[in-house]
Amino acid sequence: MKTILIVGIGAGNPEHLTIQAINALNRADVLFIPDKGAGKADLADLRRDICDRYVTNPAGRRVEYAVPKRDAANPDYGAGVHDWHDALAAIFARLIHAEVPDNGACAFLVWGDPGLYDSTIRIIERLDKAAFRIEIIPGITAIQALTAAHGIALNRIGEPVHITTGRKLGDEGVRSDSVVMLDGQTAFAALDNPDLDIFWGAYLGTPDEILIEGPLLEVRDRIIETRSAARAQHGWIMDTYLLRKREG
Amino acid sequence: MKTILIVGIGAGNPEHLTIQAINALNRADVLFIPDKGAGKADLADLRRDICDRYVTNPAGRRVEYAVPKRDAANPDYGAGVHDWHDALAAIFARLIHAEVPDNGACAFLVWGDPGLYDSTIRIIERLDKAAFRIEIIPGITAIQALTAAHGIALNRIGEPVHITTGRKLGDEGVRSDSVVMLDGQTAFAALDNPDLDIFWGAYLGTPDEILIEGPLLEVRDRIIETRSAARAQHGWIMDTYLLRKREG
Repeated sequence: MKTILIVGIGAGNPEHLTIQAINALNRADVLFIPDKGAGKADLADLRRDICDRYVTNPAGRRVEYAVPKRDAANPDYGAGVHDWHDALAAIFARLIHAEVPDNGACAFLVWGDPGLYDSTIRIIERLDKAAFRIEIIPGITAIQALTAAHGIALNRIGEPVHITTGRKLGDEGVRSDSVVMLDGQTAFAALDNPDLDIFWGAYLGTPDEILIEGPLLEVRDRIIETRSAARAQHGWIMDTYLLRKREG
Repeated sequence: MKTILIVGIGAGNPEHLTIQAINALNRADVLFIPDKGAGKADLADLRRDICDRYVTNPAGRRVEYAVPKRDAANPDYGAGVHDWHDALAAIFARLIHAEVPDNGACAFLVWGDPGLYDSTIRIIERLDKAAFRIEIIPGITAIQALTAAHGIALNRIGEPVHITTGRKLGDEGVRSDSVVMLDGQTAFAALDNPDLDIFWGAYLGTPDEILIEGPLLEVRDRIIETRSAARAQHGWIMDTYLLRKREG
């Protein structure tokens, strides 16, 4: 039986790696490195850097694979994701069959935490689960990197926190304290509540980290301009933010 | 100027420590270990174990301090927390003044992540902030340990997640996928929605970890009995759970 290790590698700082994650990477015969194309080479570089730093097991071999693009033009978001997961599951099945020795282990290095807005667990579940031992190793998320960098707590005392996506924020509006992820459309720009503060961060945990905080209506335009310029410069951006109703 | 390091140590597994956290602990002249009384000695033991494993800096000295109890009898929850934070801030100020050398650094070892349902950041903010350099190091939360142990993702595809407390769950009811923390009153026992699944875990990441999952109405009584017996055995319990509406 082969072992599949789904390993959270943190939000961009190689020092986000846990001892548990490092030990897992060192149990792997094969370390899978996704290649998302030239525009996102930095992301593959971070995974290579992590392997360079922490993998001391000489048997650990890196295998890179090309990640197909999700059909963002599919008007049915769920169906588009479903098809994309099918395509990735076929790639994973082929890679594991071809590259991982019998009774061996392989590791998928997942940005952030495998449980939060990442597809790897669901894609692996499409494989023949009975044929594999699956282990999930948690990792530091962008949310934690965001609040630590801003020096704030995520929740107010005894209060709930909502984690949502840019898409849902547009549909639902802001409820309680909301963290917004996967917001390629800058959904915050459409909010006009004068009582909201925003704590925004991009490239969290990396040397390129950018932080902006303040009353939403005052810093909104600056975030949009900063985000646009940074995205043009790097070729990609990963950002997240917390919206909080101002107290008092 | 003295440096205060607020370091997340993860959810109970010493291997949850990140490299960033280990490096921070090794910069500290003083490591503060809270003592919450005989009933919670396991919690102090975990912090000592973490120092034993990872602190190699010979200058790192451990200082234990007694944690006062919050007045749970105060009918105003917010006021009770406020008074308790005041008392802790006075203790922290005295400890930092007496124990930390000029230009030195001290570390507070925080269970989970300092940003999530922990008071340390807010207590430190009550001190004379201009007198200190404050750094926050994220840590693995019980939420991440819970979903990893159950082998599930926290969110459904593109869907939001709500993080709340037992107290709020009782007030608000279940919205979307909800993670419930700080639930000493087993608020889930009052829910009677037949479409809810629960993924429950206690002592997550430790050798005593207990996991129960299933339809809420089928496993509810088993969780309550298991929780009660475990709490009697250990003298304390830390548990958390995810409530999810069953699909299809």
